[in-house]
Amino acid sequence: MNLPIPSPMASDTSAFAAGAAYVDGVYMPLSEARIPVTDWGYRRSDVVYDVVSVWDGSFFRIDDHLKRFRASMEFSRLVPAESDDDIRAILHKLVALAGLREAYVAMDCVRGRPAPGTQYHPKNARPYLIAYAIPFIWLMKPEIIERGAHMVIASTPRIPESSVNARAKNFHWADMTAALFEADEQGADNPILLDAAGNVTEGPGYNVFCITNGVVATPDRNVLGGITRLSVIELCAELGLPCEVRDVSVEELRDADEILVSSTAGGPIGVSRLDGRILNNDRPGPLTQKLRETYWEKRKQGWHGEPVDYTTV
Amino acid sequence: MNLPIPSPMASDTSAFAAGAAYVDGVYMPLSEARIPVTDWGYRRSDVVYDVVSVWDGSFFRIDDHLKRFRASMEFSRLVPAESDDDIRAILHKLVALAGLREAYVAMDCVRGRPAPGTQYHPKNARPYLIAYAIPFIWLMKPEIIERGAHMVIASTPRIPESSVNARAKNFHWADMTAALFEADEQGADNPILLDAAGNVTEGPGYNVFCITNGVVATPDRNVLGGITRLSVIELCAELGLPCEVRDVSVEELRDADEILVSSTAGGPIGVSRLDGRILNNDRPGPLTQKLRETYWEKRKQGWHGEPVDYTTV
Ligand SMILES: Cc1ncc(COP(=O)(O)O)c(C=O)c1O
Ligand SMILES: Cc1ncc(COP(=O)(O)O)c(C=O)c1O
Repeated sequence: MNLPIPSPMASDTSAFAAGAAYVDGVYMPLSEARIPVTDWGYRRSDVVYDVVSVWDGSFFRIDDHLKRFRASMEFSRLVPAESDDDIRAILHKLVALAGLREAYVAMDCVRGRPAPGTQYHPKNARPYLIAYAIPFIWLMKPEIIERGAHMVIASTPRIPESSVNARAKNFHWADMTAALFEADEQGADNPILLDAAGNVTEGPGYNVFCITNGVVATPDRNVLGGITRLSVIELCAELGLPCEVRDVSVEELRDADEILVSSTAGGPIGVSRLDGRILNNDRPGPLTQKLRETYWEKRKQGWHGEPVDYTTV
Repeated sequence: MNLPIPSPMASDTSAFAAGAAYVDGVYMPLSEARIPVTDWGYRRSDVVYDVVSVWDGSFFRIDDHLKRFRASMEFSRLVPAESDDDIRAILHKLVALAGLREAYVAMDCVRGRPAPGTQYHPKNARPYLIAYAIPFIWLMKPEIIERGAHMVIASTPRIPESSVNARAKNFHWADMTAALFEADEQGADNPILLDAAGNVTEGPGYNVFCITNGVVATPDRNVLGGITRLSVIELCAELGLPCEVRDVSVEELRDADEILVSSTAGGPIGVSRLDGRILNNDRPGPLTQKLRETYWEKRKQGWHGEPVDYTTV
């Protein structure tokens, strides 16, 4: 299968073409979207976020993303002035402003700063919303997605969910960043992180699935509730593939027939190497390919889609 | 002992009076110091930092802070263009620009952003330096420091150092932020976090010490190598107090005669309550007071001090 190719709109030379942003009530070109160095969203990574994709002029599962974003915010007591309906309207407007048919659309809620003179406590700050739309980003280069990703098991364990809730989508990525360097040093594309007990968790930007004897499995602890993960689970049901949501040991992963990862930034993506091992003759596996083709086919047909309202600008 | 009172300089009405900042080579008023919302320093909390204090016109232990900052940067492969000598000169200039005799001086190294078109990997970004000087910040309100802090043991465990190196000073604070809310809900001022094994670690902005039968103890695992912690260890030696650097169980903390915390933002600070327990008749303990007085007395005498060069502006 060839990767879907973005379809550019009539060429857009406006200030918003490189990306359109919204910061605490104000729309601006992305290059002007900045946060104060004293904001705790930066200074304490006291922020949650979400990312939804737009393909062929349609948001994918925007309701699910808005629901997850709201849950992340409430868990972290980061509640902005905007309602879910407000946020939806902002995201539509950003994509329209940027003039994008294929977009990566991020929304963050940051803590802000305590009012001057008040006690140094997050309760004294006013959280606010940041969002932006930029051209679609692929998790990996298209060539890598085609040939299958080369993965390593990282030696750094994932931050445990007892300390940081992985389901409240956050920027606590030092473990992920260390793992990205480790993968690179080993000549691989990307890492997979384990928990302290040696169970599979996730990687920087994706959930992980393995397939053994036609049975799909994906972990449930210490992972983000990925929206693409949910889509893969739904596609398994549709394709008649049993899918188990449970602990997956590193041994099971190493012995699996196929491995795939799932991300908003590319859908289901096959893995062709794990550490020393070559899977499926060095290509994404057949069931993985089936899942990936079905995913993109269905998206083209409008599955869970909401057309962008380009008339808002 | 009364808290030392900041000594304002001749009133400064310049744009820098609220704070002076340096961002990647450029000096500016603090209010203009912002980072792009797409910078990984924010977006992946891919940043290390340090904070040094200025009191009575002198930096405290600036060499130790520069050394720790460099170690944090190297550990995280965040190396900016500036040398340690450059950073020292920048910090002097910021304090001089802001016209401060007492200052809180922060320095961050952020990842930056991968060059457009390159692979989504931190190795493709150019790290850069941010620094700023603002009026001195106390960890807690002076009244609280006087009466002794009311602390709780947080239920959220500290992020383990196997996942995020606590000695590379970082903004992975979701555990700390959750603990701050927990303390507040229980009517306390601040929390102390344990590791998964029930040993004491640290709190948001401070290391922890306890004193039992005249012996001081402070943990060494899962904690920042605090510069004030180092100062307290040195003061113990000077005052003839044995000081043990080793695991401290929560039981030992709960039974201790005295508890204190240490921070650049205030020096040694006494604890007068821990959960239900009242210590030292609801006041900071006597050895704690002795450490605190000696700390501030010695700072006034120029201990580990480096006078700010106010002539640089
Ligand atoms: C840590 C982590 N896990 C999983 C995912 C995949 O989630 P989704 O499918 O919703 O993009 C992401 C996406 O950014 C992520 O950051
Ligand atoms: C997590 C943590 N521990 C300890 C400390 C105390 O370190 P120092 O004495 O160097 O200020 C800090 C200071 O900010 C801190 O953030």
